[in-house]
Amino acid sequence: MTKKFANLRAQMSPESLARAETKAQAMLEEMPLNELRQARGLSQKMLAEVLHVQQPSIAKIEKRTDMYISTLRSHIEAMGGQLEVVARFPDGAVKISNFEDIGNNAAA
Amino acid sequence: MTKKFANLRAQMSPESLARAETKAQAMLEEMPLNELRQARGLSQKMLAEVLHVQQPSIAKIEKRTDMYISTLRSHIEAMGGQLEVVARFPDGAVKISNFEDIGNNAAA
Repeated sequence: MTKKFANLRAQMSPESLARAETKAQAMLEEMPLNELRQARGLSQKMLAEVLHVQQPSIAKIEKRTDMYISTLRSHIEAMGGQLEVVARFPDGAVKISNFEDIGNNAAA
Repeated sequence: MTKKFANLRAQMSPESLARAETKAQAMLEEMPLNELRQARGLSQKMLAEVLHVQQPSIAKIEKRTDMYISTLRSHIEAMGGQLEVVARFPDGAVKISNFEDIGNNAAA
């Protein structure tokens, strides 16, 4: 199967390939925080330990539909990830850099 | 120049092209909210009118290094964009879906 797929790709025009790549990038998987944690193989208890909070705090954060960006950043960094805040427009996307320096200490 | 660039691309292997596309996607331009507003050709006054707030509120938001995700979403939607919250890991990225339903009314 792998070989067949490679052959298929080799037959695609550079333009088609580029389009496919862009589409793949645009179609990031989407999930809530609790599913992401499970996908990373982490328990609420493990995350609570990293963040030096009690387990119910993690449960509470995972249920929230709004929070401070710094809180979210700490939460994602505790899972070993990095938060990216992106503004997407019909003609392109931009990373918002206002929040780069926050949250790093909270997760330490 | 355009033609030369197209020729160059046509000579690239599908693998090189795919790598280049992925890299371009990963290297999103990065800027703070005030620069993004200017890049969209908007004034603080215009944004204030869309959000039904006073101009100093916009100035204040643009200076903040932390805020509620709902506030940021309204702000970006007022510029005609969409907020994306992404957790990036060494092995991939995931869009966080907890915040999808917030902020839409605030910007209306």
